[in-house]
Amino acid sequence: MLILMGHQATRDQVDNVLRHVREHGFEPIELPGADRLAIGVLGSNPAQIRDAVIALPGVVDAVPVSKPYKQVGREWHPEPTVVRVGEVRIGTGAPFAVAAGPCAVESRDQLLATARAVRSSGAHLLRGGAYKPRTSPYSFRGLGAVALEHLAEARAETGLPVVTEVLTPLDVEQVAEVADVLQVGARNAQNFSLLEAVGDVGKPVLLKRGLSSTVEEWLLSAEYVVSRGNPQVILCERGIRTFETATRNTLDLSAVPLVHSLSHLPVLVDPSHATGQRHLVPAMALAAAAAGADGLLVEVHPRPDEALSDGPQSLTLEQFSELMEGLRHLIGALARA
Amino acid sequence: MLILMGHQATRDQVDNVLRHVREHGFEPIELPGADRLAIGVLGSNPAQIRDAVIALPGVVDAVPVSKPYKQVGREWHPEPTVVRVGEVRIGTGAPFAVAAGPCAVESRDQLLATARAVRSSGAHLLRGGAYKPRTSPYSFRGLGAVALEHLAEARAETGLPVVTEVLTPLDVEQVAEVADVLQVGARNAQNFSLLEAVGDVGKPVLLKRGLSSTVEEWLLSAEYVVSRGNPQVILCERGIRTFETATRNTLDLSAVPLVHSLSHLPVLVDPSHATGQRHLVPAMALAAAAAGADGLLVEVHPRPDEALSDGPQSLTLEQFSELMEGLRHLIGALARA
Amino acid sequence: MLILMGHQATRDQVDNVLRHVREHGFEPIELPGADRLAIGVLGSNPAQIRDAVIALPGVVDAVPVSKPYKQVGREWHPEPTVVRVGEVRIGTGAPFAVAAGPCAVESRDQLLATARAVRSSGAHLLRGGAYKPRTSPYSFRGLGAVALEHLAEARAETGLPVVTEVLTPLDVEQVAEVADVLQVGARNAQNFSLLEAVGDVGKPVLLKRGLSSTVEEWLLSAEYVVSRGNPQVILCERGIRTFETATRNTLDLSAVPLVHSLSHLPVLVDPSHATGQRHLVPAMALAAAAAGADGLLVEVHPRPDEALSDGPQSLTLEQFSELMEGLRHLIGALARA
Amino acid sequence: MLILMGHQATRDQVDNVLRHVREHGFEPIELPGADRLAIGVLGSNPAQIRDAVIALPGVVDAVPVSKPYKQVGREWHPEPTVVRVGEVRIGTGAPFAVAAGPCAVESRDQLLATARAVRSSGAHLLRGGAYKPRTSPYSFRGLGAVALEHLAEARAETGLPVVTEVLTPLDVEQVAEVADVLQVGARNAQNFSLLEAVGDVGKPVLLKRGLSSTVEEWLLSAEYVVSRGNPQVILCERGIRTFETATRNTLDLSAVPLVHSLSHLPVLVDPSHATGQRHLVPAMALAAAAAGADGLLVEVHPRPDEALSDGPQSLTLEQFSELMEGLRHLIGALARA
Repeated sequence: MLILMGHQATRDQVDNVLRHVREHGFEPIELPGADRLAIGVLGSNPAQIRDAVIALPGVVDAVPVSKPYKQVGREWHPEPTVVRVGEVRIGTGAPFAVAAGPCAVESRDQLLATARAVRSSGAHLLRGGAYKPRTSPYSFRGLGAVALEHLAEARAETGLPVVTEVLTPLDVEQVAEVADVLQVGARNAQNFSLLEAVGDVGKPVLLKRGLSSTVEEWLLSAEYVVSRGNPQVILCERGIRTFETATRNTLDLSAVPLVHSLSHLPVLVDPSHATGQRHLVPAMALAAAAAGADGLLVEVHPRPDEALSDGPQSLTLEQFSELMEGLRHLIGALARA
Repeated sequence: MLILMGHQATRDQVDNVLRHVREHGFEPIELPGADRLAIGVLGSNPAQIRDAVIALPGVVDAVPVSKPYKQVGREWHPEPTVVRVGEVRIGTGAPFAVAAGPCAVESRDQLLATARAVRSSGAHLLRGGAYKPRTSPYSFRGLGAVALEHLAEARAETGLPVVTEVLTPLDVEQVAEVADVLQVGARNAQNFSLLEAVGDVGKPVLLKRGLSSTVEEWLLSAEYVVSRGNPQVILCERGIRTFETATRNTLDLSAVPLVHSLSHLPVLVDPSHATGQRHLVPAMALAAAAAGADGLLVEVHPRPDEALSDGPQSLTLEQFSELMEGLRHLIGALARA
Repeated sequence: MLILMGHQATRDQVDNVLRHVREHGFEPIELPGADRLAIGVLGSNPAQIRDAVIALPGVVDAVPVSKPYKQVGREWHPEPTVVRVGEVRIGTGAPFAVAAGPCAVESRDQLLATARAVRSSGAHLLRGGAYKPRTSPYSFRGLGAVALEHLAEARAETGLPVVTEVLTPLDVEQVAEVADVLQVGARNAQNFSLLEAVGDVGKPVLLKRGLSSTVEEWLLSAEYVVSRGNPQVILCERGIRTFETATRNTLDLSAVPLVHSLSHLPVLVDPSHATGQRHLVPAMALAAAAAGADGLLVEVHPRPDEALSDGPQSLTLEQFSELMEGLRHLIGALARA
Repeated sequence: MLILMGHQATRDQVDNVLRHVREHGFEPIELPGADRLAIGVLGSNPAQIRDAVIALPGVVDAVPVSKPYKQVGREWHPEPTVVRVGEVRIGTGAPFAVAAGPCAVESRDQLLATARAVRSSGAHLLRGGAYKPRTSPYSFRGLGAVALEHLAEARAETGLPVVTEVLTPLDVEQVAEVADVLQVGARNAQNFSLLEAVGDVGKPVLLKRGLSSTVEEWLLSAEYVVSRGNPQVILCERGIRTFETATRNTLDLSAVPLVHSLSHLPVLVDPSHATGQRHLVPAMALAAAAAGADGLLVEVHPRPDEALSDGPQSLTLEQFSELMEGLRHLIGALARA
C-alpha cells in the first residue's frame, strides 16, 4: 500500500502516520517526491489498515497494491480451472459448452419439447428456471418444486445436465437435489448469505455478474463461494447496467479476456439477458465465442410469443439450431487460427 | 399500452396483432399515424401481454402506460404515510428524523459511548450493524448476536429505537427480536426472498436503494414488502453507482422530491455511504434536508480512525453535534419559507 | 405521439389538451384505458409539440412514436450504404476493412515504418493523428501540419488512404487537403459546428460514438453530417463510459448489430480505445468481426513503450500481423457459416 | 508515481524498468513488499512517462501520485477565486448569485418580459441562449445574432449582466461583444479548441460539466481555459448521465463540496437541466444552496408550455419569484448556522 501525504502535510503529521503504521505491525518507508511525500507500507495485507490510515490528518489517499481476491486469482493459481458437470467439461481446453433452454419452466410439455430440440441441435446443458426473481411482485415467479420435477424428467430423457437458479439459502438444499449446476443470478451477485450457502454444497455454481458489479467485485463474490471449500465456480457475463437503454443491458465482452487474465475460472456469456432482443442474440453469441468465452447460456423457447417471461429475447428452436451451426464453423476457424 | 407497428408492417401482421390482443382478453384500437400504425390496448393491466406482443412480426415496440407499482404509488394513495417507531414518527408532517451511530457495532463501549453522544446531540434513532455485508469474504463482518445484545442495552439506556440490518431470511426472526426498524441494505435491494421475509414481520422496514436500482425498481422492491401486508416502509437514498469515482457513490438527491411525487412513503438520505468521505457529509446532510428528505441516516464513530469498517466516512461525535446544530437552523428556515 | 393523462385528470384538463393539439395543427384521438385516458396525436412530426404538451395541467407523459432521425435510418433507406475511400469499400457486402496505425504521428520514421508494416500485414487504410485531443492541456497534442505532410508521404509510398482526426471547424479545410477520411473523435461527437463543417466537405467522415452517447444520439450526430449533403458517413464504436474502470471504456459490441438494424451506414469498431490494454485488443478485434462489424480501427506502433500517447493500448507490428492472420481465418469461417 | 511489478516479475524485468526510468531523467526507488515489488519514481511530473512504463514487461500498473491539474487546484492556490461580472461577484464570501432566464431567446418580448421579472424577483444575472446546441439537426437552434441584440437591449434596460453560450471558436468574437459571461455547454466540455478560444478572451467563462465528465476531467477542462491566461472561470454542475432515466440527468450535488475542496474556483448549479422537470427544480435549487454552491443557473419562461426548447423544465415567472423567496430564508439560516 502507498500512503500519499498532502502537499502541505507537516512533519508531525508524517510522524503520526509512521507511528500508526508501525503500531499495526507494518513497516513504513518514506518516499519523498517533487510535490509531496509518499509512504510505502510493507508486510502482509496492509490494505486492512487503509480505512484507519486514510482518516489521519495530512493523508490524502492510500492506494492498495495487491488484489483483494486470492483463491480465484490467476496470480496464485496459474493453471485454468475446468469445471466438470457430469460428462461435460467447462473451461480452457475443453470444448465450447452451450447451456440452452427456456427462461422459466412453464409446463412439462414446453420443457421437454425444448430439451429434445436443443439436445438434437448440439447443446450440452439444459437451463430452465424453477424459481424466478422478478422485479415486480405481480409477475410470474416460476412453478417452483413442480418445475424441478420437470427438469429432472427432462434430464432423465435427454441426458442433459440441468442448470437452474436458486434464490435464497432456504431453497439451496431442495434445488441442489435436482440441479447439476446451481445458478446465482445477477440480482443476487452480492447476496453473501446465498453465496456462502452454495459454497457449502458440493455442486458447481454458475455465478452471474451483478448489474453493477465491477470485475473485481464479481471475482470477490466468487471468492465467497470458493472460500467455503467449493472450487467449482463458473462465471457468467450477462450485461451490465449503463446509460444505454436501446439494449436491455450492455454486454461487456471485454470482461471475457480480462477475467481470463485475472482468474483461472471459466467464463460463460449470456447474450439473451444482455441484449434483451432476439435479433441481436446470434451476433453476440458468435462474438462471445470469438472473444474467448468458454461457452454460452442461451434462452430458447418453442413459442417465444407465448412465453411467460423474457419472450422477446428467446430464440425459437429453429433459430437456436442455426446458431449452433454458425458456432461450429466459427469455433473450428478459431481453433485453426 | 400502446403497440407500435413498423413502418412497413403488412395488413396481415396488423391483423395478427389485433387477433392476439383479443385472444388475451383485451380490446385493441387502431391509431393510424403519418409514419406508422399504432394500436392502443384497453383493459386492466395490459402490460402483462407486452412480452408476447412485442415478439410478433411487424411490431416495433409496446409502451406500457400505467405504473407497475400500485400500493406504494401516490396515485392510488394520495395521503402521505407516516411510519411510527416507538414515539418517533417519520414522514411528511413529522419532525425531521435522524438515525445515527456506527457502521458496525464493534464493542459494548464503542456503541454505548456513541449512543449517549448522539442522543445528547439530538438524534432520534440509533443505527448500528450487527451483521455486515462486505464485498470481500476476508473483511470484518460484524459481531452478530453479541452486537444485538449491545444494541438492546443501548436502547434501554438511551431510549433510542434501534435500526439494524438483516442480511438473509434466516436471520429475520432473530434480528426482529431486537430491532425497532429492520434495514434492508443496498446489495439486497432486489433480494426478493428477504423482502418478503421482512414483509411478513410487523416491524418498520428501512429499504435502501440498490446501487443500480432505478427509482421504479426501488418502488417495486418496496411493493414486495407492502404486498405481504407490511405497510411500514421507509425508503433510503444512499447513492447510486455511476462513472464518477471521486466519491464512493453518486448521491441522487433529485430522487427525494421525485419519490415524494410518485409515492406516499417517507424518504431518508444516507450521506455517509453516498459520499464515502467525512468532509462531504455535513454539506450533503444539509442538502438532503433542503431537498425535502424526511430524515437522515448518518454514520458516527467515537474514533473513526480505529473503525473496523467505513471509518473514512464516519463523523466524529463532535462533528455530528455540529451537524445537528446546523440542521436545526436550516429546518427552522425551511419551515418558515 | 401518445399523451398520457393523469389518473385524476379532469374533463377540463383533457379538453384543454385536445384544444392545444388542434391549435398546433394535429389531430387528437381519445383512448380511454382502465386506469387513465391516453390521447393519440396524428399528423407529421407531432413530437415537435411534445415539450409544450407535457407542460399542460393533467398531463403525465408524452411518448413519441417515430424515430427522430430520418436520412440515416434504415426504415426509409433499406439498402446498405457502402462508403468508398479510393479503392477501398466499407459496408455490407464489401470486404472487412482494417485501418491501422499509430495513435499520434510522432515522426516521419515512426509513421513510415508503421505504414509499411501494416500494409504488408494486409491493412486497408492508414490511421494516424496529426491533431490530438487530450484531457490535459499539458499532454502531447500532435505535430499538426508536419504530421499531415508525413501522412501524405506515407500514402504516396504505400498507397494506403489516410484516416486522420479534425478537432475544430477552423482546421477542416487544411486537414481535408490531406485526409481521405475525416475522423470526428468521441469528445466531439456532439460538437455540432464541427459535424456541420465536415458535412460541407465532399470526403468520407468517420464518426466515433461519444463516451456517453446513446445509439440514438450517435445516429442523430450522423444525421447532422448527412443533412448537410454528405452521405459518406462511417460510424465507429469505441467504447462507452460506465462504472467499470478495469478497462478504459466498455466496448458496446451489441451496438454493431443494433445499428445495422436501425441504420444503413457502415460500422467499424475500435478495440484499442475501448479496452485501453494491448492484451485485450486481439480478442475484441475478433469479437467485433464476429458481431458483424464492417471493419476495425486499430492502434499499432513500432515501439509502443516509447509512444507519446496511448502506448499501453497499441499493438506491436508483430502483434498486428498475427491479428490480421487470425482475422482472415475468422472471416473466412463467418462467410461460410 | 508508483510502478507495481507483477508477482512473478524477473530481476531482468525490474532492471529494465529501473533503466527506463533513469533514461527519462527520473530517480527510481525499489520498494519490496510481501507480494510484489513496487518502484517509486521521484522527480517533477513523472506521470508523463506512465504510458511508456506501463507497457514494459513485468509491469502491472503505474499509479500517479500528483493531481494532473495545477492552476485550478486549491493545493497550489488556497485562497478562493471570486469572479467579478460587472458589479456581481461570484465565489466564496460573495452573496449567493442567481442567473435566470429562458433556455433560448425566442423573441424580444419574451426576453424582455423575463428579464424584467427575474430582475424584480432578485436575480443577479440574465441567462438566455442565442446559439443552441441541439441533439437533432431538425430542432430549433436559436435566433443567433438577433438574439444577441435582444440580450444587449435587456441588459441595457435591466442592468443585469448577460450569460450566453458560445458553440464554436468561429463565434467567440461575435458572442464576446455582447456576453458578460461566455458559457461553454456540457456537450463542449471537452471541445478543447473552444476552451482555448474562450481562454484567449478577457471575459469570465461559465464552464458546464460534461455529461460524462469526471470531476478531474472537468477541472482539467478549466485548466485549459486558465492555462491560456484567463483565470475567470466559473464551474457549473448540471447533472451527469447515469442509468437513471426518471430524471433528465442525475444532479451530482456532492460535486459542489468536493470541487470546493479540490479547487479555488466558484461552483454554480443548474437544477433545470439536471432534473428536466419543473416540479423538481425548487427542491434541488434549495439543496444546491445548502450544499454550498456559490449560486444557480435557472431556466425561467413567461409561458413554458409555448417554449421552443426545454419548456418542461422552465419555471414560470411566479414560481421563480417564490423560489427566490425560499432561497432568501435558507441562505439567511445557513449564514447563521
